[in-house]
Amino acid sequence: MRTVNLETPCLVVDLDILERNIHRMQRHLSTHGIACRPHVKTHKIPAIAHHQLNAGATGITCQKLSEAEVMINAGIRDVLLAYNVVGDAKLRRLIRLARQARITVVADSRTTADGLARASCEAGILQRVLVECDTGAQRAGVQTPDEAVALATHIASSKGLEFDGLMTFKGGAPDLDHVRVSGKFFEATVNVLRERGIEARTVSAGGTVYAAHAWPDNPPHAVNECRPGVYVYNDCVKVSFGVAALEDCAMRVLATVVSRPTATRAIVDAGSKALANDGFQWVDGFGHVIELPDARIDRLSEEHGVIERLESRSAPAIGDRVTIIPNYCNTVTNIHDVAFGIRGGYVEAVWPVAARGKIL
Amino acid sequence: MRTVNLETPCLVVDLDILERNIHRMQRHLSTHGIACRPHVKTHKIPAIAHHQLNAGATGITCQKLSEAEVMINAGIRDVLLAYNVVGDAKLRRLIRLARQARITVVADSRTTADGLARASCEAGILQRVLVECDTGAQRAGVQTPDEAVALATHIASSKGLEFDGLMTFKGGAPDLDHVRVSGKFFEATVNVLRERGIEARTVSAGGTVYAAHAWPDNPPHAVNECRPGVYVYNDCVKVSFGVAALEDCAMRVLATVVSRPTATRAIVDAGSKALANDGFQWVDGFGHVIELPDARIDRLSEEHGVIERLESRSAPAIGDRVTIIPNYCNTVTNIHDVAFGIRGGYVEAVWPVAARGKIL
Repeated sequence: MRTVNLETPCLVVDLDILERNIHRMQRHLSTHGIACRPHVKTHKIPAIAHHQLNAGATGITCQKLSEAEVMINAGIRDVLLAYNVVGDAKLRRLIRLARQARITVVADSRTTADGLARASCEAGILQRVLVECDTGAQRAGVQTPDEAVALATHIASSKGLEFDGLMTFKGGAPDLDHVRVSGKFFEATVNVLRERGIEARTVSAGGTVYAAHAWPDNPPHAVNECRPGVYVYNDCVKVSFGVAALEDCAMRVLATVVSRPTATRAIVDAGSKALANDGFQWVDGFGHVIELPDARIDRLSEEHGVIERLESRSAPAIGDRVTIIPNYCNTVTNIHDVAFGIRGGYVEAVWPVAARGKIL
Repeated sequence: MRTVNLETPCLVVDLDILERNIHRMQRHLSTHGIACRPHVKTHKIPAIAHHQLNAGATGITCQKLSEAEVMINAGIRDVLLAYNVVGDAKLRRLIRLARQARITVVADSRTTADGLARASCEAGILQRVLVECDTGAQRAGVQTPDEAVALATHIASSKGLEFDGLMTFKGGAPDLDHVRVSGKFFEATVNVLRERGIEARTVSAGGTVYAAHAWPDNPPHAVNECRPGVYVYNDCVKVSFGVAALEDCAMRVLATVVSRPTATRAIVDAGSKALANDGFQWVDGFGHVIELPDARIDRLSEEHGVIERLESRSAPAIGDRVTIIPNYCNTVTNIHDVAFGIRGGYVEAVWPVAARGKIL
């Protein structure tokens, strides 16, 4: 099928750009001796995860059990589940996955760790655990190196558990200081653990932005793994952060002009159900229209995108198509059932977004 | 199944509240002689649409062909497709639906109207059309009564089309003035059309908020149909607008505390993939936690909800469950695959959100 024959709105992925992004990040991290463990939340598509593994990734990162279930059932055999697994129902699902694949989980409390230990002992398995550390995100995670040491020591001495190391994450705006702060947090933790004879084999940090800022100029102490997600697609936010150019953005939403109510306004058939309702302080409007670089997607309702600032010279007609680079690809992925991989004007891949909506 | 046994995060609908909301709105509109044509985008569930019809609705409103396809295939026989249908691919789908059900569409341009006329003539059907009017939303729609008259006259004289009337919509904050403005717009349009011998049989306006403000105190001229959506569920935004109380909110997201990193913070397993990333100027935070009314859902990432302002007295433990009323139910509906209807502590209905993600 030709790309121009796809009905709109739809999600397309430029395969040349996707492949270039995957190899570029892998090369960047490999050059600096850092394991690449991509977060699949950005694409939620097993075929792309396999592509990342083929390029050299050591495994993948998932956030929820249901995401891990999709990926493991698609043949992936090394998964970090970067989430505190709580409650018997979820622990049973974790155990099942642990029998199918090499799976590592995180914990930031004794409650979570003890639940993992109990389930693992009952199942007769040894569960690898990283201690989740809050190095500035103010989300989950132990708050200090002292707490990290205490929890790591507890895990290392718990039957059924294998202490594997430390992890952290902080999203949002570029924060070079966070690279330094996380390195200091890890240094303090790793050194005390080593004195106690406990080795943090894996020290995992960041993100696409972190990867760009940390290596080679500001290598954080002890970190030996990075979990970039957005780099496969990139988006307006990452462009505004200076870690990607518009030419590096592989994800696009194709839309059609359905109304031209005024001389300066066009309505397209892509609203918040196609572009996600992600306004950000760092970007202007709700996505970048490639064909209309000076226009602004001013506002979205569920099925309407309102483009303002049109000039008569470039104004599109009803029925014309536009190509929109979204603001934030992770949430866009989560609202589309299918992504079309395109190259040279043709559809080369039709990918169900298999892990879409997997919140359990 | 008992509600407490549902895995979290999940979407639940309190059936007592849902049914009360449906009957209350129907009674309100019927009392004032206004046809109720609910917009199904709020729930996207055929069973709830049938419930609305059984309560007295004259038909339903859909926004995209794919939504209409779901509803018509579920046996619904009267649909307003409140969208400009553009392009041959979509016109073919419209024709198919028009053979199955009484379907009305809108147009705000000659281009759209002429496309509808061409497709209808080819198929040998007569397509009912409303002229979409922009009475302040600054979205799609003709801009003035003069434009409305011109387009209505064009439609009325087009082979294959039947001019049925006018429609408008404006969402957002309560705007009593809009009720008045839309009434004046319609009055000017309807009167001129009548002089030309063209009858606007249907004049359709609003919304849950519009319905509350228009009748009985400010009846807008000519309006004889209303298209409320959110009223079935209600949400924090509608509570802030004063058109619903917290007790009228039927939609809730159940979540579990997975981390207690500090004395005043809890992390729940419902993030933007469960609650939608809808921050609004009118509400505080990203949803209302029923069990923790003084706490604040301060921020969301995809899989984490960060609750701040906890007091030690009420602080939940890891593993505890909370019940969250979302900010804006339409976008929440669009990210969940299933909604559980609950009553008296039990799950009474398991509803696939059949029209979720239907953007085409």
